[in-house]
Amino acid sequence: MKKGMIKVSVLYPNAKGKNFDIDYYCNQHVSMVAGLLGDAIKGATVEKGLGGGAPGSMATFAAMGNLYFESMDSFQNSFGPNAEQIMADLPNFTNIEPVIQISEVMV
Amino acid sequence: MKKGMIKVSVLYPNAKGKNFDIDYYCNQHVSMVAGLLGDAIKGATVEKGLGGGAPGSMATFAAMGNLYFESMDSFQNSFGPNAEQIMADLPNFTNIEPVIQISEVMV
Repeated sequence: MKKGMIKVSVLYPNAKGKNFDIDYYCNQHVSMVAGLLGDAIKGATVEKGLGGGAPGSMATFAAMGNLYFESMDSFQNSFGPNAEQIMADLPNFTNIEPVIQISEVMV
Repeated sequence: MKKGMIKVSVLYPNAKGKNFDIDYYCNQHVSMVAGLLGDAIKGATVEKGLGGGAPGSMATFAAMGNLYFESMDSFQNSFGPNAEQIMADLPNFTNIEPVIQISEVMV
């Protein structure tokens, strides 16, 4: 992605009793979001947590999803009107409340 | 990045009294790490935190750095011998203790 783009990360903190269906997320949720937001999305990535810094430790995040936009306006204008529908899909793949991080791409 | 690659994320949690020199990080630290790990690194990205999900909220992470490797072995064999030198550079740009997340690239 290009410097200056907006990266929106959706991070799913791991904990005992939490679950996350990575197959549903990759195959259903991501394509639903892509369909709703359309051309505003300039890139999307998904990662599955494997572990933390200490050997054998649990990953801080069960999964991370990242969307890239040209600008903050583009993110807000495309995501805002679809936020409710997107959030309503979460119980279909997880009982985790995600952390949202909005960042600027530097490198 | 390709499915199956290993993504190592270094996340710097934001809080009052914490500081992070994004210029030093982008211009000095990243190139130092790249020089030490060499060809093992298949990609590197840096993002600066702008905000959280709620309007006007502080970003959970002041910054995020991500390195991509072909495999867990490649990460461990290249990072392990250089970990001490890399960690010793942290006080030059931040007083934050980072969170390390090791992930598998899915999408």
